[in-house]
Amino acid sequence: MTDIAAQLAEIVGAGHVLTGEAIAEDYTHDEALGIEPVTPAAVVRPADTAEVAAVVALADRSGVPVTARGSGTGLSGACLPQPDGIVVSFERMNSVLEVDTENHLAVVQPGVTLAELDEALAPAGLVYPVFPGEYSASLGGNVNTNAGGMRAVKYGVTRQHVLGLEAVLASGEVIRTGGRVVKLSTGYDLTQLVIGSEGTLALVTEATLRLYPRAPHGATILAPFSTLEEVTAAVPKVVASGVGPLILEYIDMLTMAAATAYVNLDLGIPQEIKDTALAYLVVALESTHEDRLEQDTAAVAEQLTDLGAIDIYVLPPTAAASLIDAREKAFWVAKANNADDIVDVVVPRASIPEFMAKVRDIADGSASWIAGCGHAGDGNVHLAVFQADPEVRSEVMTDLFRAGMDLGGAISGEHGLGRTKKHYFHALEDPTKIDLMRRIKAAFDPKGTLNPGALLDA
Amino acid sequence: MTDIAAQLAEIVGAGHVLTGEAIAEDYTHDEALGIEPVTPAAVVRPADTAEVAAVVALADRSGVPVTARGSGTGLSGACLPQPDGIVVSFERMNSVLEVDTENHLAVVQPGVTLAELDEALAPAGLVYPVFPGEYSASLGGNVNTNAGGMRAVKYGVTRQHVLGLEAVLASGEVIRTGGRVVKLSTGYDLTQLVIGSEGTLALVTEATLRLYPRAPHGATILAPFSTLEEVTAAVPKVVASGVGPLILEYIDMLTMAAATAYVNLDLGIPQEIKDTALAYLVVALESTHEDRLEQDTAAVAEQLTDLGAIDIYVLPPTAAASLIDAREKAFWVAKANNADDIVDVVVPRASIPEFMAKVRDIADGSASWIAGCGHAGDGNVHLAVFQADPEVRSEVMTDLFRAGMDLGGAISGEHGLGRTKKHYFHALEDPTKIDLMRRIKAAFDPKGTLNPGALLDA
Repeated sequence: MTDIAAQLAEIVGAGHVLTGEAIAEDYTHDEALGIEPVTPAAVVRPADTAEVAAVVALADRSGVPVTARGSGTGLSGACLPQPDGIVVSFERMNSVLEVDTENHLAVVQPGVTLAELDEALAPAGLVYPVFPGEYSASLGGNVNTNAGGMRAVKYGVTRQHVLGLEAVLASGEVIRTGGRVVKLSTGYDLTQLVIGSEGTLALVTEATLRLYPRAPHGATILAPFSTLEEVTAAVPKVVASGVGPLILEYIDMLTMAAATAYVNLDLGIPQEIKDTALAYLVVALESTHEDRLEQDTAAVAEQLTDLGAIDIYVLPPTAAASLIDAREKAFWVAKANNADDIVDVVVPRASIPEFMAKVRDIADGSASWIAGCGHAGDGNVHLAVFQADPEVRSEVMTDLFRAGMDLGGAISGEHGLGRTKKHYFHALEDPTKIDLMRRIKAAFDPKGTLNPGALLDA
Repeated sequence: MTDIAAQLAEIVGAGHVLTGEAIAEDYTHDEALGIEPVTPAAVVRPADTAEVAAVVALADRSGVPVTARGSGTGLSGACLPQPDGIVVSFERMNSVLEVDTENHLAVVQPGVTLAELDEALAPAGLVYPVFPGEYSASLGGNVNTNAGGMRAVKYGVTRQHVLGLEAVLASGEVIRTGGRVVKLSTGYDLTQLVIGSEGTLALVTEATLRLYPRAPHGATILAPFSTLEEVTAAVPKVVASGVGPLILEYIDMLTMAAATAYVNLDLGIPQEIKDTALAYLVVALESTHEDRLEQDTAAVAEQLTDLGAIDIYVLPPTAAASLIDAREKAFWVAKANNADDIVDVVVPRASIPEFMAKVRDIADGSASWIAGCGHAGDGNVHLAVFQADPEVRSEVMTDLFRAGMDLGGAISGEHGLGRTKKHYFHALEDPTKIDLMRRIKAAFDPKGTLNPGALLDA
């Protein structure tokens, strides 16, 4: 590696190759629970695509694994380094290269964070609508996990908003996929294949993103219900109304209490309602017209009342923002409370009640404690699992994933498989599909240089 | 093949294996211009997935090519048979298997047509929003070309609405991709990879489609302009207004005259306006609320007037439907007028004026006649090319495609490459990407059984 470190220094400059003690702790892990940090042989911080290509070509020639890293906010260990490997950190490739207000698209480097992009777009009245809840997340990471988040019920996930990519293959070749267009039909969709591939097929060095007009008016409704079943049963009905909610979240009582306490938020809900509310529904709406927003808000409030809401709170903007913030911090609350693992199973949205009944059975049957919240409009249920015994926990996790898959869902709606969920996927998924994915991996990366051990076994 | 015909008869029943004279002319081509029909060795009409799998496995073992066929409405020769091959026609696998009104999804077999699906969904107040303009097209074909159409400006293309697939691999193995969910992050997206692959990676035997509430109110605005430039310049401004048009089409004067004559449609536009209008913009809007629709219609009308429209016609429903119908028949009009080839280049929508200027230069420079219309909101320009000399035509086509690609666009927005556009793609596209596509093809279909010659060279 000493020799390679010297060659890396020639490519990116000595100041941008870190080895040994110079590698900060942050590079050794992401935010996944229960993973052991790994210090790589080297961290490089390339300045541009040509440097990335040269680094990857060198690594591929030398049989050294390469792990791409954005902000390291992932929840599945997808950017965990290899001890003998190189981490390519995109922190210096962090420019918003272009905001095209006529075609509604932005061209970004992978190290740009969602917060930085949003700041660049706001003055133009445009929005990149994917908000996975962590504003320090990088666009490169978002692309590689197909990030979702609360607004996916209206706008869909990352996959629907990436028009094109520039990417470095394992060979060091640079390709440009897709284009500055919202549709095309010219062969296999390499853009879509790289999205969600968790750094195992190519290193994304640029992304062209689709933008939307920023809706000027928004409202947030909070509705407590006496049972979780009533909340989850209300979800498909709100979607069917055609009101097109921006956000449609459920939060269980425990998560609501912990999350609001975590951010020190008092929503002014009377104690007697808190005492009877076992779950909450949050509905956010947005509109181009203030009068339409008022009309839609009233319609949703009436619908939720008919569906059994104990009360309806139309939150003032500050309280609404704080509630969304608290909901986004649910993972940190779970972590602070020493959750042993987290799950983001996705099921058909009308099957959430059935899935949650299974969750209760699994929790009861294993003496585990499972609480959560979720992107109810998408059927994406986020659970914190408290079960200290690793063997029992593994069974609990397997049972949760199997229950989701049996309902037509999947192990992960947006967190990805990385290292921590991969073995469940391999145990539960059709081996024919996993073999096919291995062959696709080999078509891109025959020597297995890119992020070995993530998604597939090395 | 006699031996194989007998084996095919054992799989699907003798009545569903056609050979020789029994093969109707329709099976020998699609609607692409300028292709020579090819009679395959056999046409089979399987009843279910197990029969498809057995047919494909037999073909793969025997080294016989397989071409999947839906309704045969494609425009690029993607389902042109091989003379020694088997055509798998999905005409008997034409059931809407399920309409899930709670999760807003439908499960269909590949032979279901868009018309049949729409008929099944209308009573439930739901819509599958992709309308590529040919209602007899099959969903299997739509998936394989990533079909688009006029409503893509609001809803996107097929790719955005397919949640999962059942597909038969070249080996005869059957996989299920995706799920009954609107998002997932579990490895490489096989659903997206098969979409748009023109039958070269797998045979789609079932698709799970996302549905939407059917908007009850609609309006259509027709605006004549004195120049095509004014029309195409208006497009990004209408999109930027946030009104969210369902349809945003431009139609040039010649195409408008020919298309309305073709369906015998009189829109009541005075002759003096027809005389000065060189191009038309069609804007369709839809809404959950009648008052909002009226407000939006008035806003668009005002905006288009400010942008230079000679006049504004809000069409009565029957006239609107006839105009859309006439626009959808533009291909047939081109064909009836003996167009030599057609193009559906896609460019960034704000670049349409620049692209059209290039088109004019290319037409003038080659003494060709080029006319058209287009999904202006998507930048997807549909042109009929009249140039009898094959060599000159090939240059004209290459120049048109290169002009589109140079603007950040692509050779095809929705028609696909098939056999007729493939060689332009191979000439103009980055060879690194084509090599990668070849390796992906080999990962799925190592013996090259599935639709050889489409997209990639056999």
